[in-house]
Amino acid sequence: MSLAFAEARAAASRGEVPVGAVVVGPGGTVLARAGNRTEELHDPSAHAEMLALREAVRVRGGQRLADCALYVTLEPCPMCAGAAVHFRIGRILFGAYDPKGGGVEHGPRLFARPGCLHRPETIGGLREREAQAMLRAFFGARRMS
Amino acid sequence: MSLAFAEARAAASRGEVPVGAVVVGPGGTVLARAGNRTEELHDPSAHAEMLALREAVRVRGGQRLADCALYVTLEPCPMCAGAAVHFRIGRILFGAYDPKGGGVEHGPRLFARPGCLHRPETIGGLREREAQAMLRAFFGARRMS
Repeated sequence: MSLAFAEARAAASRGEVPVGAVVVGPGGTVLARAGNRTEELHDPSAHAEMLALREAVRVRGGQRLADCALYVTLEPCPMCAGAAVHFRIGRILFGAYDPKGGGVEHGPRLFARPGCLHRPETIGGLREREAQAMLRAFFGARRMS
Repeated sequence: MSLAFAEARAAASRGEVPVGAVVVGPGGTVLARAGNRTEELHDPSAHAEMLALREAVRVRGGQRLADCALYVTLEPCPMCAGAAVHFRIGRILFGAYDPKGGGVEHGPRLFARPGCLHRPETIGGLREREAQAMLRAFFGARRMS
């Protein structure tokens, strides 16, 4: 989770919304790490989770990540939660809850829906205050400028 | 929609699930067209819609597609519907309904949820039988082989 926070801080320093994600394989191997790059790539889908999931599969050479965990500093949105299903990620551990934009514990709660094709184990609230504080500091600074 | 069907047929000929998508700008300009490439790219997120939305933004140079329409041969899944929100696509016109995997008229019905940040206009069932027949032929042939 510390690596995910480092990616989030690096994203903030690039002027991106500070969200970071890391995909960890069996035995704790870091397969991929990414920060949000929507501004830099001019791609609204370039969320940290999407970039890290794609990179992890590229590194591994397979398409599925059932034995891997995704660490991310913010609750994934419906797009990223939907992607996590397609990648068959085994576990998702996230920092801050996102009552407005989240898709795991809020909104559509994708994994809790009947008929969901894959249900990753999820744990929310990891280092929650730190994750919230980072997001608040970023948006606070933007409102001031 | 004919271009989306052509992309779906091209995807099938590559051994991909036959789904095709086209993003059309104001005045009917085709900004991007793509077929499903999850197998070729070893990327479970490489759905036709994701590829076409990203390409459309790249072609245009902006991040938003509010004055554009996405034509796609199958009802978008939750990942792609979530992406359509982030891209602020104006309209989505799709072919076959997807009761098991869809996220627009089925499952989480993302755009109908309270708090959804952007609600594209949606029209489903365009050339529905043709779209269904194409998918059935593909999966039927795979079961036989």
